[in-house]
Amino acid sequence: MFELHAQLVKDCIVLGELPLSTVLLCNDSHYPWLILVPRRKGVKEIFELDEQDQLQLLKESSAVSAKLYEYFSAHKLNVAALGNQVEQLHVHHVVRYQDDIAWPKPIWGVAPANPYDDEVLQNEVVALQNLLATLGLKPI
Amino acid sequence: MFELHAQLVKDCIVLGELPLSTVLLCNDSHYPWLILVPRRKGVKEIFELDEQDQLQLLKESSAVSAKLYEYFSAHKLNVAALGNQVEQLHVHHVVRYQDDIAWPKPIWGVAPANPYDDEVLQNEVVALQNLLATLGLKPI
Repeated sequence: MFELHAQLVKDCIVLGELPLSTVLLCNDSHYPWLILVPRRKGVKEIFELDEQDQLQLLKESSAVSAKLYEYFSAHKLNVAALGNQVEQLHVHHVVRYQDDIAWPKPIWGVAPANPYDDEVLQNEVVALQNLLATLGLKPI
Repeated sequence: MFELHAQLVKDCIVLGELPLSTVLLCNDSHYPWLILVPRRKGVKEIFELDEQDQLQLLKESSAVSAKLYEYFSAHKLNVAALGNQVEQLHVHHVVRYQDDIAWPKPIWGVAPANPYDDEVLQNEVVALQNLLATLGLKPI
């Protein structure tokens, strides 16, 4: 049975589920940063998903990307499946601005996570759940 | 008309063309590192491609990933569309090992590129062109 990796549980807030992927908000206020985790046990690479799941992941990733891009008036998105430290397949979707703390570098390793204040986090979670509800996101 | 970004021309060697993407080898011997560049003018984000092109990019990305993973006996792949410095949409496919120079960090910004020696590069290009010929790669 699929279980979300403990490190992702620790670092993120679960926003809800799309048909294939669980959607997480990284608890790092430096960047609007969502992670999609396909609920498939033991999969580490995108190409290891079966064809139908690959198509669904693409669909969910692009739909989430478009929503984030518009909602946050992004300058750029960074979309990445890395997984060097957490092998469970997960796809980062990071909204980037030209004045964010890491710009123009990739975000990883540049600055320690800066957790949201509780109230800001609650508001952000609700706003993102509403944003993604139009894509069929179901809170869990 | 589509033109490959000057920075990609400078940093990479063109291996050939798949139906949608031009395939580049990064001239950095630290990692086996290919880049797929969909030949679509003005596109910066995956979600900006039309649906058919998104599906083709996924197909090419996964096929290249599987080939790289097997050929290089990869520990992990890093697949990423970043584009903070080169806005033209391009998707990195980096073979990672637990003893590479950046492990377990993402590779960007860790070490300056270490260009291949000429003869090694020529051999690598031929080997990769042969590897990807089975996917329909056409040298240009």
